[in-house]
This record gives sequence, structure tokens and C-alpha cells, in this order.
Amino acid sequence: VDIRIIAIGKVRDRAITALCEDMTGRIRHDARLEIVELKDSDSTQEGKRILETAAKRKAFRIVLSEEGRECTSREFATLLSRQTTGIDFIIGGPFGLSTDVKKQAGMLLSLSRMTFTHEMARLFLLEQVYRALSICNNRKYHK
Amino acid sequence: VDIRIIAIGKVRDRAITALCEDMTGRIRHDARLEIVELKDSDSTQEGKRILETAAKRKAFRIVLSEEGRECTSREFATLLSRQTTGIDFIIGGPFGLSTDVKKQAGMLLSLSRMTFTHEMARLFLLEQVYRALSICNNRKYHK
Repeated sequence: VDIRIIAIGKVRDRAITALCEDMTGRIRHDARLEIVELKDSDSTQEGKRILETAAKRKAFRIVLSEEGRECTSREFATLLSRQTTGIDFIIGGPFGLSTDVKKQAGMLLSLSRMTFTHEMARLFLLEQVYRALSICNNRKYHK
Repeated sequence: VDIRIIAIGKVRDRAITALCEDMTGRIRHDARLEIVELKDSDSTQEGKRILETAAKRKAFRIVLSEEGRECTSREFATLLSRQTTGIDFIIGGPFGLSTDVKKQAGMLLSLSRMTFTHEMARLFLLEQVYRALSICNNRKYHK
């Protein structure tokens, strides 16, 4: 799998950064993973930058959104394994994503009905990607 | 609110520990919070210890379980604000919880349809408790 995460803003919390880096390292043993961090501003500007960046390659575009559909980790693993052209995940910032970004998504995905910070969302997503790869590769993973 | 978290095992990951401690400190400005860590073994033994510990006080017992019902952060805040006798949250270990623990729950709660580690579950729960208190106290919270 060839995965790209397009996110608004940097992760500022040091502990979350450390956890994200740990997960990134693990994922890269199994898959290509690129993280693109775009500058934050208002959601219209952010939306433009996201769509410009995403347009640079052909990939299945999964946008993280509270309105999205939920899936189990196993369903998520199946989803990942079926993509042949690569996957772009898009995570907004504190101000949310513009409707344009949501409209042009291949799929809207919700990680939980509960709301959490975009920093936690990035960590959660990375952990689920690693879990999905573990499921696909029949590797035990829990800690 | 008077909150107790009864969890199996310690959090070993240093970054997750740091994040949990940060959240614990924040929560304690608004509410009483006790974290009880029980020794891990098999799920039957773990279940016995959990039920013994929980029996020591009268509280609404919320058991974290994949089979539980999901709620939004706002619904979770309402749930918390309605409890007058205190709340016990129960988080199992890597081997899951015994059926006895689940049967004797006031409510089964699922944080997400996705699976994650019990360490991440603890962090996620603490973050949602803090978010719930922020909602109840009309305090802005995002980072």
C-alpha cells in the first residue's frame, strides 16, 4: 500500500509527536507512508491547499469527518488492502474541513462518534493503519 | 462528579503515560478522579478483582467494551453530569473482560467501532472525560 496523510498543521504536543513517530516507523516496515503537513489558516484556504496537494496524484481519497461512516478495524484493513492506486487520508485542523474537501472525497470516514483533537485523530489514524497492516500480514499486535 | 477508573495493568508506554498524567491533572481541577490499577492475570481472575474493587462503593458502573453502545462527546457529557453517586469506569487488559464484569455493568460503552490497545483506551477515555467536563463547564477545549 502507498499511503499519504495530508494534515492541517503540525502536532505540537511532544508526547503525541513521539507516539506518531513510533507508529510511522512501524508502518514504514510494511508500506510507503508520506505525511504532508499544510499550513493552517481558515478552512476555505486550508481546503484549497488540501485539494491542490491531493490533485498531484491519483489515489483513493479518504477524508476524516464526524459525518463519515464508521468501520471496524477489520473492515478498515479490508478497505486498505483493496486499494491499488494508493490512499490519501485527509485530516483537517481545529476549524474543520471545507465542504469542497468533503464533497470531493472518495469516502468520509469517522474514527468514532466522539470528538477528539486533530492531534489525537492523527495518532488514532496511524495506529489504525498499523493495526490494519498487522491484520493483513497476520501479525499479532497488542500492547 | 466523583470518578474512578478501574483498569487492568499499568500503562507501560512512556509517552502515553505522560499524556494520561496531563489529562489526569486537568480533570482534577474540576472533579475527583481516582485511578485504580489492578494486577493483570487471566480474565477470570481479573474479573474477580474488578468486581471486588467496584463493590467497595456505590457508583454507576460503566464498562468499556466493543459490544457497548457508542455516544457522542456531548451525550457523554450529559451522561456524566447526571450521575450523583459517582462513576466507575472499567477498562480491561489485553485479554478482555470476563462476562461477569460485563453482566454487572450499569452500561457498556464503546469508544469506537475500531479496536485499540487498552493503553490507548485509557488515554482516549481520560480525554473524553476532560472534554465532557469542559462541555459541562462551558469551557473551550481544542488543541
